[in-house]
Amino acid sequence: MTKDEDRANFPSDAVIVSIDAMGGESGVEAIIGGIEISAKINPDIRFIVHGDSAKINALLQKTPALTDLVDVRHSDKVIEMHVKPAQAVRGGKGSSMWNTIQSIKDGEATVAVSCGNTGALMMMSVLRLRKLPGVSRPAIAVLWPSRNPSGYNVMLDMGADIKADAKDLLQYAIMGASYARNGLGLTRPRVGLLNIGTEDNKGRPELREAAELIEATQEASDLEYIGFVEGSDMPSDRVDIIVTDGFTGNVALKAGEGTAKLIGQFLRDAFTHSTMAKVAALFASGPLKRLKNRIDPRRVNGGVFLGLNGTVIKSHGSADAIGVSAAIKLAFKLAKNGFSEKLAARVASAAAASKNTPSKTDEA
Amino acid sequence: MTKDEDRANFPSDAVIVSIDAMGGESGVEAIIGGIEISAKINPDIRFIVHGDSAKINALLQKTPALTDLVDVRHSDKVIEMHVKPAQAVRGGKGSSMWNTIQSIKDGEATVAVSCGNTGALMMMSVLRLRKLPGVSRPAIAVLWPSRNPSGYNVMLDMGADIKADAKDLLQYAIMGASYARNGLGLTRPRVGLLNIGTEDNKGRPELREAAELIEATQEASDLEYIGFVEGSDMPSDRVDIIVTDGFTGNVALKAGEGTAKLIGQFLRDAFTHSTMAKVAALFASGPLKRLKNRIDPRRVNGGVFLGLNGTVIKSHGSADAIGVSAAIKLAFKLAKNGFSEKLAARVASAAAASKNTPSKTDEA
Repeated sequence: MTKDEDRANFPSDAVIVSIDAMGGESGVEAIIGGIEISAKINPDIRFIVHGDSAKINALLQKTPALTDLVDVRHSDKVIEMHVKPAQAVRGGKGSSMWNTIQSIKDGEATVAVSCGNTGALMMMSVLRLRKLPGVSRPAIAVLWPSRNPSGYNVMLDMGADIKADAKDLLQYAIMGASYARNGLGLTRPRVGLLNIGTEDNKGRPELREAAELIEATQEASDLEYIGFVEGSDMPSDRVDIIVTDGFTGNVALKAGEGTAKLIGQFLRDAFTHSTMAKVAALFASGPLKRLKNRIDPRRVNGGVFLGLNGTVIKSHGSADAIGVSAAIKLAFKLAKNGFSEKLAARVASAAAASKNTPSKTDEA
Repeated sequence: MTKDEDRANFPSDAVIVSIDAMGGESGVEAIIGGIEISAKINPDIRFIVHGDSAKINALLQKTPALTDLVDVRHSDKVIEMHVKPAQAVRGGKGSSMWNTIQSIKDGEATVAVSCGNTGALMMMSVLRLRKLPGVSRPAIAVLWPSRNPSGYNVMLDMGADIKADAKDLLQYAIMGASYARNGLGLTRPRVGLLNIGTEDNKGRPELREAAELIEATQEASDLEYIGFVEGSDMPSDRVDIIVTDGFTGNVALKAGEGTAKLIGQFLRDAFTHSTMAKVAALFASGPLKRLKNRIDPRRVNGGVFLGLNGTVIKSHGSADAIGVSAAIKLAFKLAKNGFSEKLAARVASAAAASKNTPSKTDEA
């Protein structure tokens, strides 16, 4: 069977999402469940689903409404969660992850989603899609709950790379701003650099250098540089995009998630530790549910890979159907807004501008 | 007046804490309030209080029970919160902060507490007390709420220095273990190195080198090395001491604090957004209070400076009387256990051991 024979007859104006059905901790069920939720909410979306076709088709038979919306592509291989990225890439051709990315490369789909191994997905995405001209390190951007009107801040890099120099941080700022415009609908997003204090003299030398570079690009890149921010600003409403290297970002993100989980457990403990407390929990069920919804990590599922020729979204490995549908929703939004092309144009224009303006290094 | 004339007649077996009454955001009131709480709970403790004697004495007159427990020492100068450390040190002689540290150096007090400018307090402490032989970078250690039986994990460095090489991280592990033994009463604390994954091949080169060094010192330093941990392990019960550089540690700590604060606000919102919710809050007041106490940041107030000839505790700048009393309680516990001497002995024996065991660098 060739792709053409295989291919479902999708409307030409539909947004097509390429999805890896394998490699997540909750199995193919979570993927098909997520597709089902998304398809109900959004009739304009179509899916190319890669993986074990027997498993996928068995699940699809239970939901006939999806028949015309999903194009199933069989893959023999699965990239396991704990395989090293280099190893995954070496033996990865023909895997569901590889094929999911390939659908973007071939122009069949606009955006890709996978719940699999993050390192492998990033390395394979870089290999297949290639970095945008001028991008040295791609980044992973996530949304973090904040006091902003949108309810979120954008944070990057969350662990695509363990290092970032001043120029990388500048690019993260530009790419993060483009993501905030297309993902959160902000016109002139405010960018802060993550540091251990807000005074100009604080922190590592590359941060002070990056601060100068970002400040200089404010007008050209339609962003507002607000200076250094701290870990405590992750939920703040004084910033929209928090820029940092992938090591610090990954630790900060997990520190925040871990803290939220601990408090969630303390809250359950508090409302179950005695009969009185359990009765109180009944009376408080409304507000408690409201709180739970507000901090539900499934609502902000999806790390977006920035800096490649194409948009790839990494869903949490443990995402259930609701989590997967959140990642699909984000994929749809970005595809609909033409995010990949807009991001590429932003990066290209920033690269052109930096050639015209001699940087400190050029002067030296 | 000389110090001897000035000095209160403290019992020879009392633990004497030197306290900086100035420089905190809640004023002298919080310090005297904290002393009052601590003195009630613990009759064996005495205080040398440095600062504006007029203000201090005015407050002490309202609490006659403290008269024999507090020795007031006047200082003209205050180190302000946002002065740069180097500037604070240059003009710092005779300030309440300087004199608070000096009481340790002179052997009048066993441990020092200040709510003032962290950077200035660290720099002044290093200058006056000097680093322990063999220590290259002192560290700030804090307690973080965890699922461990003690209720806490130790984290260091929280921002004494923005960098740490493999040998610094080894020393943090040894010093952190000594702190956990004396502060949390653990016999063989478990040490983890903060990284962005738990696999041995993850992260920065200095982390892999530090992992080998810490593993090699396990027996000699009475600690158990459990490998890499992630930001999500901050509240975990699989580790007692989380070792990291001061940049990452500071960001992680503030990310956790910021998240806790955001959830606290969401919780208040949930229980006030409607009349029904407000009624529910009345029924739920018991469990909610229980939760609030459990995540009250005042209960774990106090960053301990490790690696100096003497123990200095940095209280939160915004600490109120309850927060100050928590810092005093920690100071008392460490002083009572002879922590400064035990830490110095640990560091000295580790330094001696490393001279006998050729390190990788020596072989090269």
